[in-house]
Amino acid sequence: MSFRTDAAYARELDSQDELASFRDEFVVDDPDLIYLDGNSLGRLPRRSAARLREAVDHEWGQRLIRGWGEGWFSAPQRIGAKIAQLIGAVPDEVIACDSTSVNFFKLAMAALGARPDRRKIVTDNLNFPSDLYVLEGARKLAGRNYHLDIAVSSDELTVPDRLLAQAIDGDTALVTLTHTAFKSGWIYDMPAVTELAHRAGALMLWDLSHSVGALPLALGEAGADLAVGCTYKYLNGGPGAPAFLYVRRDLQEQLLSPIWGWFGQKDQFDLALHYEPGPGLQRFLAGTPPILALAPVEAGVDLVLEAGIERIRAKSVRQTEYLIGLWEALLAPLGVTLNSPREATRRGSHVSLGHLEGLRIDRALIEEMRVIPDFRYPDNIRLGIAPLYTSFAEIHEGIMRLRQVIAERLYEKYPTERPNVT
Amino acid sequence: MSFRTDAAYARELDSQDELASFRDEFVVDDPDLIYLDGNSLGRLPRRSAARLREAVDHEWGQRLIRGWGEGWFSAPQRIGAKIAQLIGAVPDEVIACDSTSVNFFKLAMAALGARPDRRKIVTDNLNFPSDLYVLEGARKLAGRNYHLDIAVSSDELTVPDRLLAQAIDGDTALVTLTHTAFKSGWIYDMPAVTELAHRAGALMLWDLSHSVGALPLALGEAGADLAVGCTYKYLNGGPGAPAFLYVRRDLQEQLLSPIWGWFGQKDQFDLALHYEPGPGLQRFLAGTPPILALAPVEAGVDLVLEAGIERIRAKSVRQTEYLIGLWEALLAPLGVTLNSPREATRRGSHVSLGHLEGLRIDRALIEEMRVIPDFRYPDNIRLGIAPLYTSFAEIHEGIMRLRQVIAERLYEKYPTERPNVT
Repeated sequence: MSFRTDAAYARELDSQDELASFRDEFVVDDPDLIYLDGNSLGRLPRRSAARLREAVDHEWGQRLIRGWGEGWFSAPQRIGAKIAQLIGAVPDEVIACDSTSVNFFKLAMAALGARPDRRKIVTDNLNFPSDLYVLEGARKLAGRNYHLDIAVSSDELTVPDRLLAQAIDGDTALVTLTHTAFKSGWIYDMPAVTELAHRAGALMLWDLSHSVGALPLALGEAGADLAVGCTYKYLNGGPGAPAFLYVRRDLQEQLLSPIWGWFGQKDQFDLALHYEPGPGLQRFLAGTPPILALAPVEAGVDLVLEAGIERIRAKSVRQTEYLIGLWEALLAPLGVTLNSPREATRRGSHVSLGHLEGLRIDRALIEEMRVIPDFRYPDNIRLGIAPLYTSFAEIHEGIMRLRQVIAERLYEKYPTERPNVT
Repeated sequence: MSFRTDAAYARELDSQDELASFRDEFVVDDPDLIYLDGNSLGRLPRRSAARLREAVDHEWGQRLIRGWGEGWFSAPQRIGAKIAQLIGAVPDEVIACDSTSVNFFKLAMAALGARPDRRKIVTDNLNFPSDLYVLEGARKLAGRNYHLDIAVSSDELTVPDRLLAQAIDGDTALVTLTHTAFKSGWIYDMPAVTELAHRAGALMLWDLSHSVGALPLALGEAGADLAVGCTYKYLNGGPGAPAFLYVRRDLQEQLLSPIWGWFGQKDQFDLALHYEPGPGLQRFLAGTPPILALAPVEAGVDLVLEAGIERIRAKSVRQTEYLIGLWEALLAPLGVTLNSPREATRRGSHVSLGHLEGLRIDRALIEEMRVIPDFRYPDNIRLGIAPLYTSFAEIHEGIMRLRQVIAERLYEKYPTERPNVT
């Protein structure tokens, strides 16, 4: 079946899609709305709404404080063990807790503490800015004239391993990158970069936020030391859902969290006056886990496990290839650039398209075309593919509407300034 | 109407209670269950279940990413402004975010950073151990040979101001206490202790976890610098609900959070590579706020505001007085001690009763008497009064069942070891 740009072709692709039925697992009340922002906030799984009602009405409402003994205490570890299956880790290497930023802070500080004689952190400018901010703060806190070396990609699309190799040296305590770059969707070679860090004696911390749930990961195989990730994107955990962190098993007892809360304390209910870190990953917990917010995370992870991460990735590749085919045929002639890698093995599950009027195009799509893309400054229209619920027909229709906005200059009525909240 | 120990007297007190109707605002499916642990986990307000359904089904399910522009972004500040009304702060001095431990860490580190020439932190042994753990970690992180001075109360019930005055000196950067002590329910004199800290040039950080929602607080009047608090106790925010933090307005721009995430960044969606702290309290946000977990916090706070914190406190005092009256008449003769202050103005909304067999008594109450108290090592049976839903009849019945467990030695069949999870 060779590529065509008509809607019938999209429907044919949908009819051959073995994951198509998973769309019914989600609340999709408004089929005319084209949602291409699952990489920012995944849709609501039906089972998550049900799971949360159970957590509220039965567990909180009826079981009250007894809920702690009936599944709440173990929630961070239990959900972590499920996420471990998606990232190539063993069950006790992952816990779900806090926000991605707080977890990233904990692991970055722990890593600096474990390399006390070194003075350098290496990252790059494709990294998500929040991670860079946390690193700046961590550097200040660690207070030993840490140098934050940000390797700079020339095209803002890819970062060659060579650039990182130049930055990493014997003074490097920590190398940290976002595995799938948030703008371009560029995927790093996890084993190769981890090896670069290890060869220099540095620890490697991966941010998996734009990867987890979209593609298989193999942290164990890659020898990765540390990782954090977000659950509200491809894991569909809900707005601001708790994040997760990973620490390789043999490192767990060597590292210390900077935040010594009671859920990280050994024998928590002794209520001893002095802190003694709990065994394994427990020491990376701090305060009381947000039970209600964790409930839909678990349901979302279950759904991804049922669909199978290999199948999700295979569909994601087919869909991003299809989208790029449509771009090439219909949008490139209108001056739209492809700001994502062309090679599928190097590309995550979103595709960035560039246009100087990207911001106003984005506004027009949302406000009059019933398309929800995402936008990243200065000119990236990010189109997220969430294979569990995105259909080929939806991608087709989204690109048709995008083409109309550009071809008919429907964006011209919108202001060039960003609104306060995007 | 003079005190009597019979059930009819409790019913008379209930009939005169102007807050009695608020019990209907809560899910109470099982009226035979005596729940005296609202100081650990507040009951489920009916409106919170409804509010959460709205957040899930409508906001997440239908509005999707657009939810951020429709109330999610401002949730930490909006809910913070409501909590401010309960603690005597102005609206922009409070935000709701993260866990109590993470917020406590942020403020403790910020305070140490603001007093760089000082080397001492003062607290006491009535403080909640989690706070002590965070302080130990913060001291290590700050790395300047910080001394953690834990003033030790001789009776574990009260800490005289004089003990604190001895500990606080010109080298003290930070004084921090839990305003209502978690075991005894002892309430500190907030203005007096804050004044002690200020006289020495130290910053004062209050943990309001066992106070907020149970009694009126006046942080502004007391000149308090910093505070954190929990929302899952008397604010009925749900298990592990996000906490809040307070920073006095004139201090906000002088302090820096140790965790520099994107929600704390000025002009967050510029996605600039370098961190610039946002104005006011925004800088104390880190990662993406947990929207679903915040929804019931807001509903819970609204309910407290409707009832009025002065009326809640008045009822709380009447109820703890009544409970102590029953203790004196019925339990003291059986060897049960009162481990809470006798003076109402010095007592929070829970009453601790002591018995050498406290742990086994607690087990018996839960497992065969349908009473849920709380227990704090080594011998404290904590009875929490939540005036919004606790009735006098419930207190009476709870004490009757407790008396039966002790008088008939029903606890003897239980093991003396703690179960793993309590």
